[in-house]
Amino acid sequence: MTGSTRGVTVWFTGLSGAGKTTISTALARELRMRGHKVEVLDGDVVRQNLTKDLGFSQADRDENIRRIGFVAHLLSRNGVVVLVAAISPYRASRDQVREQIQDFLEVYVNAPLEVCEKRDVKGLYASVRGGTITGFTGIDDPYEAPLRPEVECCTDVESVDQSVRKVVNALVQRRYLNLTITT
Amino acid sequence: MTGSTRGVTVWFTGLSGAGKTTISTALARELRMRGHKVEVLDGDVVRQNLTKDLGFSQADRDENIRRIGFVAHLLSRNGVVVLVAAISPYRASRDQVREQIQDFLEVYVNAPLEVCEKRDVKGLYASVRGGTITGFTGIDDPYEAPLRPEVECCTDVESVDQSVRKVVNALVQRRYLNLTITT
Repeated sequence: MTGSTRGVTVWFTGLSGAGKTTISTALARELRMRGHKVEVLDGDVVRQNLTKDLGFSQADRDENIRRIGFVAHLLSRNGVVVLVAAISPYRASRDQVREQIQDFLEVYVNAPLEVCEKRDVKGLYASVRGGTITGFTGIDDPYEAPLRPEVECCTDVESVDQSVRKVVNALVQRRYLNLTITT
Repeated sequence: MTGSTRGVTVWFTGLSGAGKTTISTALARELRMRGHKVEVLDGDVVRQNLTKDLGFSQADRDENIRRIGFVAHLLSRNGVVVLVAAISPYRASRDQVREQIQDFLEVYVNAPLEVCEKRDVKGLYASVRGGTITGFTGIDDPYEAPLRPEVECCTDVESVDQSVRKVVNALVQRRYLNLTITT
């Protein structure tokens, strides 16, 4: 019942409010219970610790992803399951990280903009509509959806548990986890 | 003969040219041979990957150390022996990292400035004396030596092997390594 020691980076990409943090947090709990070493690199937290100099221009967003990728690589090559939750709007940027890390799964956390905006957990969409935030992904800044993500979670129609299970199954299939869901 | 899984950060501080990279590289080789997970975070490399926005003011140097500390913490709490080789001239900055990581050894790589300058592996001291570099640690920028480092390596009078052995012994003593040097 102990976890394997093969590291991997699971990269959650999607709009603000799509559910990246929620799914990755639930998945982390699940994996830790099963004895795996897990780290969650959440975009918001990482911006405090590694990239607080960076803004939201394309160049800054790319550098943000590059730094997260660097750290995720260090961790996953040492046997850690790294869960990255970051909007990471640019496809090329995500593909570079994929190439660097190799042991890499992309999870497209997909919910329609209207749904994300309605949830508005952080009140950001309200600020955008109120005009106090600009350059916001999905509104006046691009989001390039993954073309062939390993997993797609449609969080407007599936539960958190269902999303978590999809990711776990994808990890088992690729032998990053040596166990199946028993519940 | 396999390594333990208890992570720790070994922090090499000292002037440019004191031997931080040399000792940490040799130590990394030794530890890997013994089955430990090891990552070297070298100041110069990290500046490329995590902190290329930063200069050499006190604020920037502190932020540089804070970021390295953040990554070292993530790695060492997942069982990795992290070897940081960074001038890290400010005592308060190093003490903050120590407090954050807890599993932390400070190694003062100590060689007289004249010796470091004579070695001048990267040609930096020549540039300083030539006036093309300013704000250089030990010349016109401060270096605050550790007051109670766990290990001090006097690289002007001891060999790389001797320095490595000192660090290994300190790690064994504190049970981060479960083996003694057999050579």
